Amino acid sequence: MIYLDHAASTPIADSVLQEMMPYLKENFGNPSSIHRFGRLATKAIESARKRVAELVGASPAEILFTSGGTESNNTAIHGIMTQNKSRQLITTSIEHDAILEPCKKLESAGFDVVYLPVDSTGLIDLQKLESVISEKTALVSIMLANNEVGTIQPIAEIAKICKKHNVLLHTDAVQAVGKIPINVKELGVDLMSISSHKINGPKGIGALYIRHGVALDPFILGGGQENGMRSGTENVANIVGFGKACQLAKENLEKNSIHLESLRNYLVQRVSSEISHVTVNGNKEKLPNNAHFTFLGVNGEDLIIKLDEYGVAASTGSACSVKTQKASHVLMAMGFSHEQITGSLRLSLGISNTKSEIDQTVDSLKNIVVELRSVSPFKAKYGF
Amino acid sequence: MIYLDHAASTPIADSVLQEMMPYLKENFGNPSSIHRFGRLATKAIESARKRVAELVGASPAEILFTSGGTESNNTAIHGIMTQNKSRQLITTSIEHDAILEPCKKLESAGFDVVYLPVDSTGLIDLQKLESVISEKTALVSIMLANNEVGTIQPIAEIAKICKKHNVLLHTDAVQAVGKIPINVKELGVDLMSISSHKINGPKGIGALYIRHGVALDPFILGGGQENGMRSGTENVANIVGFGKACQLAKENLEKNSIHLESLRNYLVQRVSSEISHVTVNGNKEKLPNNAHFTFLGVNGEDLIIKLDEYGVAASTGSACSVKTQKASHVLMAMGFSHEQITGSLRLSLGISNTKSEIDQTVDSLKNIVVELRSVSPFKAKYGF
Repeated sequence: MIYLDHAASTPIADSVLQEMMPYLKENFGNPSSIHRFGRLATKAIESARKRVAELVGASPAEILFTSGGTESNNTAIHGIMTQNKSRQLITTSIEHDAILEPCKKLESAGFDVVYLPVDSTGLIDLQKLESVISEKTALVSIMLANNEVGTIQPIAEIAKICKKHNVLLHTDAVQAVGKIPINVKELGVDLMSISSHKINGPKGIGALYIRHGVALDPFILGGGQENGMRSGTENVANIVGFGKACQLAKENLEKNSIHLESLRNYLVQRVSSEISHVTVNGNKEKLPNNAHFTFLGVNGEDLIIKLDEYGVAASTGSACSVKTQKASHVLMAMGFSHEQITGSLRLSLGISNTKSEIDQTVDSLKNIVVELRSVSPFKAKYGF
Repeated sequence: MIYLDHAASTPIADSVLQEMMPYLKENFGNPSSIHRFGRLATKAIESARKRVAELVGASPAEILFTSGGTESNNTAIHGIMTQNKSRQLITTSIEHDAILEPCKKLESAGFDVVYLPVDSTGLIDLQKLESVISEKTALVSIMLANNEVGTIQPIAEIAKICKKHNVLLHTDAVQAVGKIPINVKELGVDLMSISSHKINGPKGIGALYIRHGVALDPFILGGGQENGMRSGTENVANIVGFGKACQLAKENLEKNSIHLESLRNYLVQRVSSEISHVTVNGNKEKLPNNAHFTFLGVNGEDLIIKLDEYGVAASTGSACSVKTQKASHVLMAMGFSHEQITGSLRLSLGISNTKSEIDQTVDSLKNIVVELRSVSPFKAKYGF
């Protein structure tokens, strides 16, 4: 099986699992306990916190562990806006649902939420942002890289605009972390969401970077773990694994991104030259592991089912919305027609993918597209 | 090392970890993906959901996976009360902070929260509950068994009162599950919180039982996982482990509780007959694995540090509040004096504890108590 859905989830690296094992076995203490089992767990968490911080240029005290990227996003939005009743939040129309849904809830609670539009490559307009931002604005939340088309927003420039207007900036960096160099200080963000299972760490764990000095209300309340900012017994083994995954991501960032980009470019080049009526989507500033195509006259769902039969795991877009079968809000915001959205395919590469896997994938894709187009209702329109 | 802090956390059972391993290795798919990696993950989750349901007599569709007991409690309180603005919640003064803190937040948002008192054994008064409950009441949340003293509340009788007044009942069963037989239908509860790491499953995973027909607002918003009720990529491996832990707990419930109760009774009998000025706390209706003592003239913190040196892991009370060094709100509610609270020790037994470990523990305790009392400021008072 060729796995090309790394934007959905990634396998746990061997060395990550290896570091987790003692915390799944003998070191099972609750970090809040003061006996040695507890102290061992606390030590492991603090060492992992340091590694997460180092990957993104933060200090350990600025890293809050959560149950994943979604909780990080919820915590950021909720934590800032509950302190800013009746103020405004600016976001984009292409955010992940883990931002858009909390925003909808804010709207129903009477908050003003502005959704910035994007161009056909998925990029927001900085002048538009600057024209909307005002004294009413409490928070801007704009993703670093899009999960469907991989487009990278100019967060450092966005941060300058936010600073000028004294507005906090959150970025959902779940897809970007480990793929491109990220330094929170250089980016100038105040809050940033990170997920472990997108960077070869375990699921069920993530982090929120909270710049020193930024105050926010805690989201999950209880025993006061994580300095009162996130209650609940810490998921020690997964935190340890997340830490190791961050260390690996930092060490191998350049090597990985060169590998991913070269494979991705090869994939895009072969697909666009060997299959007709294909568009390559997203901006030139995009994640090195993302390839997003539209195959006209083809249904993306059929495509991934066929690819699965051929032994290739792929996706039409966000894994999180596949089961609901709703059309991609990202592609809609980019101005894609219904037909273009329907024919979309995301191939997201991982560090263990090889050139031979890409070749097999393209060969399969060519067969599948021909097969699907032979029965396409658009057959006559495009003269397949 | 003798581990007697199972109320704080428990080791993962070997067979639990064994079932988790494939999901920490090759079966790493995102359950929302429609390719075979995703389908495998979905299948594993549904099989685990069935096992969790079976342990508590629920149907699988009534089980919502969360990141743990604390999130389950937050979800229940938030999910019901946001639908019942300006109504009342009744709880007790001895709940876990994962209930009390969300309640405090409700109060600051203008909700009316009533905290029922308890007697010196930690039991609420049913007549008192019935006198407080009214048309204004939306939810009653009362823990099944207390995490410090192990006292079991008469939840089935409480449920009858709630039903009579058409009020929803939530119970925090984190400490009770796996220790005593629990059937949600027989208990008559509408919502119930469960945690995995208290029953030899992994940390970072739990569940909320939501009776079919009970509507509540989701707490964590995003991609719509868990039928829209809890967003975020599912923690597949931990869900699988939790499922296995529930299966084991169900299979071995009677055997385990007999073992725990007999060891605990032996421990209590030896301590009360061989150490002077000791009280045994809690009600006779209590968890089979809980032993809670007050050693007069001794500081509990010193006791657990010394026990740790002697190779025994114990706790003064809730692990979650140990680091904050605040006096136990449970013991305060039970009317304990400051001196009694200070001298408290919780020993919580697990399925792998042995009689010989209990003997070693009591022998150590005897030495330690003598040692600490020899320098106690209460030396003269009690004539140690």
